[in-house]
Amino acid sequence: MQTINMLSEQIQKYIDQNPIEGKPSELYDPINYILSLGGKRVRPLMLLMSYNLFAENTEQAFPLAQAIEVFHNFTLIHDDIMDGAPLRRGKDTVHKKWDENIGILSGDAMLISAYKLFETLPADMLKNVFPVFNKTAIEVCEGQQFDMNFETRNDVTISEYIEMITLKTSVLLGAAMKIGALAANSSRNDAQHLYDFGKSLGVSFQLQDDYLDLYGDPKKFGKRIGGDVIANKKTFLTLKAFAKANAKEEKELEYLFSKTNLTSTDEESKIVRVRDIFNKLDVVADMKSEINQYYNLALNSLKLVRADDDKKIILSAFAQKLIQRDV
Amino acid sequence: MQTINMLSEQIQKYIDQNPIEGKPSELYDPINYILSLGGKRVRPLMLLMSYNLFAENTEQAFPLAQAIEVFHNFTLIHDDIMDGAPLRRGKDTVHKKWDENIGILSGDAMLISAYKLFETLPADMLKNVFPVFNKTAIEVCEGQQFDMNFETRNDVTISEYIEMITLKTSVLLGAAMKIGALAANSSRNDAQHLYDFGKSLGVSFQLQDDYLDLYGDPKKFGKRIGGDVIANKKTFLTLKAFAKANAKEEKELEYLFSKTNLTSTDEESKIVRVRDIFNKLDVVADMKSEINQYYNLALNSLKLVRADDDKKIILSAFAQKLIQRDV
Repeated sequence: MQTINMLSEQIQKYIDQNPIEGKPSELYDPINYILSLGGKRVRPLMLLMSYNLFAENTEQAFPLAQAIEVFHNFTLIHDDIMDGAPLRRGKDTVHKKWDENIGILSGDAMLISAYKLFETLPADMLKNVFPVFNKTAIEVCEGQQFDMNFETRNDVTISEYIEMITLKTSVLLGAAMKIGALAANSSRNDAQHLYDFGKSLGVSFQLQDDYLDLYGDPKKFGKRIGGDVIANKKTFLTLKAFAKANAKEEKELEYLFSKTNLTSTDEESKIVRVRDIFNKLDVVADMKSEINQYYNLALNSLKLVRADDDKKIILSAFAQKLIQRDV
Repeated sequence: MQTINMLSEQIQKYIDQNPIEGKPSELYDPINYILSLGGKRVRPLMLLMSYNLFAENTEQAFPLAQAIEVFHNFTLIHDDIMDGAPLRRGKDTVHKKWDENIGILSGDAMLISAYKLFETLPADMLKNVFPVFNKTAIEVCEGQQFDMNFETRNDVTISEYIEMITLKTSVLLGAAMKIGALAANSSRNDAQHLYDFGKSLGVSFQLQDDYLDLYGDPKKFGKRIGGDVIANKKTFLTLKAFAKANAKEEKELEYLFSKTNLTSTDEESKIVRVRDIFNKLDVVADMKSEINQYYNLALNSLKLVRADDDKKIILSAFAQKLIQRDV
């Protein structure tokens, strides 16, 4: 059984030492550029931890862990184009550094490269894992489309929002767990419980991400603070604020969230005003409570997994760390 | 053994009756829109013909044939964004009818949907087919990137051009043949010969496409005639014309192929002038000879396939039809 830090170092090293290579360089450079920007490697780490519950030789799962990270980074390239985002992890996004066409095409090549990494699996294992990955990959697209649809809708409910982030973010964490378990020859039931663990944890993870987007430390966050507010995204905080607001506050929120194309000074004062209203309505407390609810759901799923408690504890510790993170 | 027309009708019907479904509609409508625009269904047809060399029950290969067509149409959606193309098969392209973001994301979902259609394969077959599809899919991306790179280069050679269209177009025809054969339990050797057949035929196919782009009947072609010339694409015809031109003609070609953002009247006169030079240099004859060379390579590969001659004849007839088509 390996510690989180050991696995984390190993997968980071593996990804660095196994770039996605080919010609022409315009297609492959952006792939290795975005992978080199780092990130927390949450998904491959989860895959390896899940694998490690049932098998010791984690290096056999490295290509699968890399596949999940490559897939995730493909979604970042395409999402950044769709969102018009200039920064990712404190650096230029791919379409900013190169151009949109290169962003589209290197993203496509990256999605295919993720699939390619599953070629290491034996036939029976591939047959088990392939539908899990396909289903998840398409759900992530569905989540992104719901997210875009929500931008022009004013009647999004909190449950629709949770459903959207479940598709866009959580199912991939679930799939990482499930694929790790299946690759280590777990039972179908255990693989499903671990999927549920990852999926519930994923909701907490994304809610914490939404929180950090507005309340994070700009030095640590790597993206602009308040990006969601500037883009008028209806995150949990915003939806909850609308739900709790009195008539006057609601009017002000509506006014603030109707603004587009502001000067950068006006953007800053919009962020300050929105944060003031959020603080007054104490929506962060509601969010923390929602995060805890999904965290507990995750722990309940973990309990059902038939593996040694001293092995499972690494996963509950990881889950706690994930929802308390400040980056 | 079934005729081309029978297989063609069957796969058309199968694709129509098995749309790619899911929510939200903004993600799936564009997928079924582009599939409904028709097209020649060359790739799925080739897959089925190849399958039918070794097995009778072609309906078992329908999902694989659909997968190849879905993949091909994914590349069309993304290529049309990259090329800024307004028309596809005489109708609005996806990014024109909706927008670029929807084009990017529905294209992604389409690529994943293509993979999903391989889930019908038994474990051993999936293990054989999966790497063929992965390799081909990434090569198609490489071909598209080379194509984009060539737009800003003035020193593209004919052999580089052939290599580019091989990646962008031909390998998918080869893969359709190979996957069809493998799915029907052909030998590895036969599958490889059929791959080579499809790949060589693919070069002829693309050269004929280039020819039709400038010399086709606008009523039949479904795209604007002269699109490649307007976009300053270096097709075989252009490269050959540069190679054969005298100093004066070369200068005029350089002048014509440096023009961008022309008015539509100037575009028309550019097309006329380019066609005049091409006709004078008789580059169409060179192209026909190149087409024939690859057609003969294809027939040679087909000869090596261990299957009944009366079954293989359907494929040689198809090949001939493909390179003589006017649409």
